[in-house]
Amino acid sequence: MSRPMRVTVLGAGSWGTTVASLAARNADTLIWARRASTVEQINREHRNEDYLKGLALHRKLRATTSLEEALRDCDVLVMGVPSHSFRATLKQVAPLVRPWVPVISLAKGLEQGTQRRMTEIIHEELPGHPAGLLAGPNIAREVLQGMAAAAVVAMPDETIARALQPLFSSSVFRVYINTDVIGSELGGPLKNVIAISAGMGQGLGVGENTRAMVITRGLAEITRLGVALGGRAETFSGLTGLGDLLTTCMSPLSRNRQVGEQYAAGKTTAEIVASMNMVAEGIKTSSVVMELAGTYGVDMPIAREVAAVVKGEHGAVQAFRGLRRLAAGAEQESG
Amino acid sequence: MSRPMRVTVLGAGSWGTTVASLAARNADTLIWARRASTVEQINREHRNEDYLKGLALHRKLRATTSLEEALRDCDVLVMGVPSHSFRATLKQVAPLVRPWVPVISLAKGLEQGTQRRMTEIIHEELPGHPAGLLAGPNIAREVLQGMAAAAVVAMPDETIARALQPLFSSSVFRVYINTDVIGSELGGPLKNVIAISAGMGQGLGVGENTRAMVITRGLAEITRLGVALGGRAETFSGLTGLGDLLTTCMSPLSRNRQVGEQYAAGKTTAEIVASMNMVAEGIKTSSVVMELAGTYGVDMPIAREVAAVVKGEHGAVQAFRGLRRLAAGAEQESG
Repeated sequence: MSRPMRVTVLGAGSWGTTVASLAARNADTLIWARRASTVEQINREHRNEDYLKGLALHRKLRATTSLEEALRDCDVLVMGVPSHSFRATLKQVAPLVRPWVPVISLAKGLEQGTQRRMTEIIHEELPGHPAGLLAGPNIAREVLQGMAAAAVVAMPDETIARALQPLFSSSVFRVYINTDVIGSELGGPLKNVIAISAGMGQGLGVGENTRAMVITRGLAEITRLGVALGGRAETFSGLTGLGDLLTTCMSPLSRNRQVGEQYAAGKTTAEIVASMNMVAEGIKTSSVVMELAGTYGVDMPIAREVAAVVKGEHGAVQAFRGLRRLAAGAEQESG
Repeated sequence: MSRPMRVTVLGAGSWGTTVASLAARNADTLIWARRASTVEQINREHRNEDYLKGLALHRKLRATTSLEEALRDCDVLVMGVPSHSFRATLKQVAPLVRPWVPVISLAKGLEQGTQRRMTEIIHEELPGHPAGLLAGPNIAREVLQGMAAAAVVAMPDETIARALQPLFSSSVFRVYINTDVIGSELGGPLKNVIAISAGMGQGLGVGENTRAMVITRGLAEITRLGVALGGRAETFSGLTGLGDLLTTCMSPLSRNRQVGEQYAAGKTTAEIVASMNMVAEGIKTSSVVMELAGTYGVDMPIAREVAAVVKGEHGAVQAFRGLRRLAAGAEQESG
């Protein structure tokens, strides 16, 4: 390779900024943010106080408000914008990047209406680009603080995945590779729905047994849907499936878990959404997941109960009663 | 069936007593305990204060100190004794039971020296009997208190498994079946070793990211060894694998997790064993697991670090450093 790799990260939220800071250690890295104040803070103070209060970013990370500047020398494009603005951002990006530049998604959502995964949107808006993702059980603050963690770079081509792996790796941040893009990408959105159920359980004080049951049976139904959509079952037992599910269900910082706790306290969706400054993805994803489950004929009892609570059809207590009523059969069956 | 099913449970520890109390709801159930005081307390007060302080047992559960009486009308035998006395108890049992009586193990260990699973010991001591187990993410106190939980009856024959399923089921205790006895049986012992690592992480304050990584990568190495030993990979993603691993890693009540926390505090194995009134199975299992890993050529980096700490070769901090040094490859590979 003739010159050092150049990484561009679009979006300076907590995870985009963290990934950019990781990459800055290994490559020339530029982050694009909409707000001039954020850009200035990153360039001058090496901080992003809005999202990562009190934490220092890598000193070599540079920021810009100009999409043109951000993409001019881009070898690798990292998409750190949320799922609802993913497509619109890509439309702006399309004319500005070379057509072989790999695009890595950080977003964990499914597009409302179309039910698309983020890499599907990349294929639609930037056809021909190698498209993949970086995901795993990662709490941005903990990763930035240097606590040990692991993630997965998923790309359809293993050679490209192996070339991208060292960009994000450090001695405390282990990056694995996986060529199962579909499976790796579905873990994130689907786990948010299960996390709402785990949060409801937490709020209702159901105990460790029940929490382990929700996570384990939740993983089983995520895996069933994921396999129906073309993912590999073993991917869902890995970092982007189980790992991410665990972190989200266990961490008190998880927004989706907090949402579940609020349902357990009797709040409605409208009240919960009004009280949070960021929307927990799982609320929106629950209906998309039930659409997919219907289309593919997959039984998802936990997601179904979450979707019913989100829609206000019944409360958290009734949802847990509903789960108990199901007859238990063979372990690999639904229910 | 001409008369109601009769269940015999041998061993009145916390889990044996809990399972007996569950079965008493569905069948004529008799529990055998060595101590006359325990038997009296169960028969007169419907309690077992030594192991389940303050909790009420099912009123129909009866107890006896006589092995002959316990086995006279036995249709289903449940082995609630710990793994170190499992074989000796079966030798006493052998002449007293009809040869087609199914035997269900509750013990989560591997025999020292022979590396045998409990159902292998059943086959050796009671040849011809259908042998299986009841296992899952179950904290005895929580199950007895009626908190929702789930478990698996694993038997090689599905018809027998389905016949045993209703014996232990209730509206809040869901019993699934699985015909993969090897895989279902290995989850319990292997997870104890990973739980020690999770406990060390907890003690060192490594954060949710790292804990999720230890659990997820721990499940991956448990699965690799389990598949090498003849288990099915998907079983390890279920209640007896992941489910049990989760409960043990997350619950502050877990003895194996507590052991890890004490290693993190700088204690030695001798000090930890001396301070506990029950031995955590994971301490002994760690060396058996490394023997098996060696025999079958399976790389188990987390178990290896735990075994080294147990043997006093290095401390918890070094163990976590050791894990970080490993190069990360493809997600389905070791490391």
